[in-house]
Amino acid sequence: MQKPSLPKGTRDFGPLQMARRNYILDAIKDTFQLFGYQQLETPAMENLSTLTGKYGEEGDQLLFKILNSGDFLKELSPADLGKGAAVVLPKVAEKGLRYDLTVPFARYVAMNRGELSFPFKRFQIQPVWRADRPQRGRYREFYQCDADVVGTRSLLCEAEIILMIQRVFTKLGIPAFSIKVNHRQLLAGISEAIGAQGMEGPLCVAIDKLDKIGWEKVQEELRQKGFSESSIQGLSPLVQLPKGRKERMSALGDFIKHSELGRKGLQELQEMVDLLEKMGASLEQFEFDPMLARGLSYYTGAIFEVKVLNVSIGSVSGGGRYDNLTGVFGLPDVPGVGFSFGVDRLYDVLEELQLFPEEASLGTSLLLCPVDEAGFDYALTLLTQMRQAGIASELYPEVAKLKKQLEFAFKKQIAHVGICGQEEANSKTLSLKNLTTGHQEKLSLDQVVQKLLGNKI
Amino acid sequence: MQKPSLPKGTRDFGPLQMARRNYILDAIKDTFQLFGYQQLETPAMENLSTLTGKYGEEGDQLLFKILNSGDFLKELSPADLGKGAAVVLPKVAEKGLRYDLTVPFARYVAMNRGELSFPFKRFQIQPVWRADRPQRGRYREFYQCDADVVGTRSLLCEAEIILMIQRVFTKLGIPAFSIKVNHRQLLAGISEAIGAQGMEGPLCVAIDKLDKIGWEKVQEELRQKGFSESSIQGLSPLVQLPKGRKERMSALGDFIKHSELGRKGLQELQEMVDLLEKMGASLEQFEFDPMLARGLSYYTGAIFEVKVLNVSIGSVSGGGRYDNLTGVFGLPDVPGVGFSFGVDRLYDVLEELQLFPEEASLGTSLLLCPVDEAGFDYALTLLTQMRQAGIASELYPEVAKLKKQLEFAFKKQIAHVGICGQEEANSKTLSLKNLTTGHQEKLSLDQVVQKLLGNKI
Repeated sequence: MQKPSLPKGTRDFGPLQMARRNYILDAIKDTFQLFGYQQLETPAMENLSTLTGKYGEEGDQLLFKILNSGDFLKELSPADLGKGAAVVLPKVAEKGLRYDLTVPFARYVAMNRGELSFPFKRFQIQPVWRADRPQRGRYREFYQCDADVVGTRSLLCEAEIILMIQRVFTKLGIPAFSIKVNHRQLLAGISEAIGAQGMEGPLCVAIDKLDKIGWEKVQEELRQKGFSESSIQGLSPLVQLPKGRKERMSALGDFIKHSELGRKGLQELQEMVDLLEKMGASLEQFEFDPMLARGLSYYTGAIFEVKVLNVSIGSVSGGGRYDNLTGVFGLPDVPGVGFSFGVDRLYDVLEELQLFPEEASLGTSLLLCPVDEAGFDYALTLLTQMRQAGIASELYPEVAKLKKQLEFAFKKQIAHVGICGQEEANSKTLSLKNLTTGHQEKLSLDQVVQKLLGNKI
Repeated sequence: MQKPSLPKGTRDFGPLQMARRNYILDAIKDTFQLFGYQQLETPAMENLSTLTGKYGEEGDQLLFKILNSGDFLKELSPADLGKGAAVVLPKVAEKGLRYDLTVPFARYVAMNRGELSFPFKRFQIQPVWRADRPQRGRYREFYQCDADVVGTRSLLCEAEIILMIQRVFTKLGIPAFSIKVNHRQLLAGISEAIGAQGMEGPLCVAIDKLDKIGWEKVQEELRQKGFSESSIQGLSPLVQLPKGRKERMSALGDFIKHSELGRKGLQELQEMVDLLEKMGASLEQFEFDPMLARGLSYYTGAIFEVKVLNVSIGSVSGGGRYDNLTGVFGLPDVPGVGFSFGVDRLYDVLEELQLFPEEASLGTSLLLCPVDEAGFDYALTLLTQMRQAGIASELYPEVAKLKKQLEFAFKKQIAHVGICGQEEANSKTLSLKNLTTGHQEKLSLDQVVQKLLGNKI
């Protein structure tokens, strides 16, 4: 006999969590599909040759590797053992678990280049695995939820990402959020403008902390990183940019007017705004933030990051444009733009703001409770009728004390019970009890259906 | 530069396959939920202590094991290496990939016994992994789709499984199928009746081949397995049972009348039939087959197996009742009944019978095709309106030759394109072309919406 447990950093999702996760994922999927994105699923296992070297050295360490099946020792000699894990690994494992959804997507595009029609819009919602040290809010197995369009440089894609984020957040009832937008080339232009060409990486890391540590400390950090005093002083106009989008973009335009890269970046952001306006979109949540950094090594164009206001939770969505998704797999010149939703964080946001609708925690709408044998037989006929009407219904599987049955309904969060006994069978009625209000009434079957379907709408 | 590939026995599911798989899974989920089943997801990784020893020796071989993260060699000495894989394995791997959904479910029930209200109805749709030799139709990663109710012995559960199978197959438009039903105790009773008590295992293996190899060869096999001549002769009435359910059950009743186990099994089957009749169910597909064997070691009560008629594909669904799901995890006396759908096989069935609806292959309903700059700007406004009306729409992301845009729509299987140029912009119309029929007409926007929504219904 063993006491079962779960591997560190993994979770079960029970009925309530699943209902709530599905509530979030349905809003996302529905939006992706409305915008013409098609679903893709790739296997959990990839060849290590596909995964290794794509996530930096640290990422390689965090890959979960799968032991070769059969006699995994057959290629290993005792001498190998002394040479350490790096020599042994390729001899005992050739597969690993997916680390993200981007590399498998790139592999898919490269392998299916002949079949796909570009621009190719795909979304993918699957778990990924990372051998990170587990801690609060960080898991070794968690879902990612990505959408990418590849094979086009049209800024319509960027504009549509803003629209999709707005639609998902609106559908989920999130009252206030901010979509921060910046452009990689604008960051390069700012570096150029302060005479620190190519140093936008460390620049952003430092400036990113402005809210937290203040301008004085940011300057210190920049000095430490080798920025000249004149570069640092050159930055100061950016610390007090006007708030409004137009004013801010115009101030930035002045700032980077001598940088061709910077002008190009700003112009693309302006074009995104123009497209959104032509589409009648609200720009209320659109926040131009010239100091947004986000994954510099990978992105080459616009970048996004979404935060929900008035919660203690970090960014819940983000993404950006890249130039070359599939080059490493032998297919050059596939530009694209992608973004993702953080499902775990969105879950926490909806929980913190109490935005989960009651239905997202419910499965069954009606529990039929047989209190005698005649009631059981009567309930059998009702069950069929209720389900035919589309009402998710259950029959308590045996005649039992009503108290026990009500407790069952309560624990399973079933909102209505229908009490079935000889009396109801004779009169072809149902005693319907609302477990939330305690209200009970004797109804005809038509009335029951009407009541329960009405409740759903 | 590397040529990417997939691990043996794994697959990508592209947009068309995903749409079709979702079509199947939606029908199944919808049915599970209508019957009060709640969704559960468990992690892909389980501790090897949870998995090992649950699937027999062969099963243990087929488990995918995950290499410990960090320095996986640290507990291994060169001397261990000589002792073979069985000694090395526990020192380098403590986790494995889920092999089925039943053991994780049992682990979940045992771990959450205090929280769950019984009877607990759960469904689970997730991939599983087996290091089987890959071959046509057999994969190393594939989805299972299980529903179980535990914590009750009520035969209502068995009856409802029949109803759920009928509902799913009807929803999928499968015209003819057969639900074979038998009972483990009836099999024991038959063995007893022919004086071969406890030998129902080999008996079923042999009799299972009746259709294929004929009665003579079955007798030979039984002789080889040590059945006495009188036992074999005693079986002959079963070879020519009447076809009709009632007649068959009555003949069986005579056959096993001296076996208490047999009578109990037959009585339970009769009770299932009675429940189904009280619920107004059709018994058309219900086929009582006293020779159905199916996983003898695990099941203890009713067993099911579903075949689609007129296709070359094996059973697509099956299950049965068991006495003790969680005993191995320290929680005794949890009886239950479960069944599963074979998603890959159902896919093949629908494909072979051409039952996939066209919508299951489509994502986007409308592609807007801008033929000039004015048309592009006009299309931007249309796009918002179409999506607000709930029509999944895309705009080709740049002005391009119409031919190129139509080819794109054709390859993505988008049924309608809306041509947008200066003329349409001026007249606030859309030239809507049906790519299936080739028919093109100039419509007002209201007409377009009506047409495309009408198409969906």
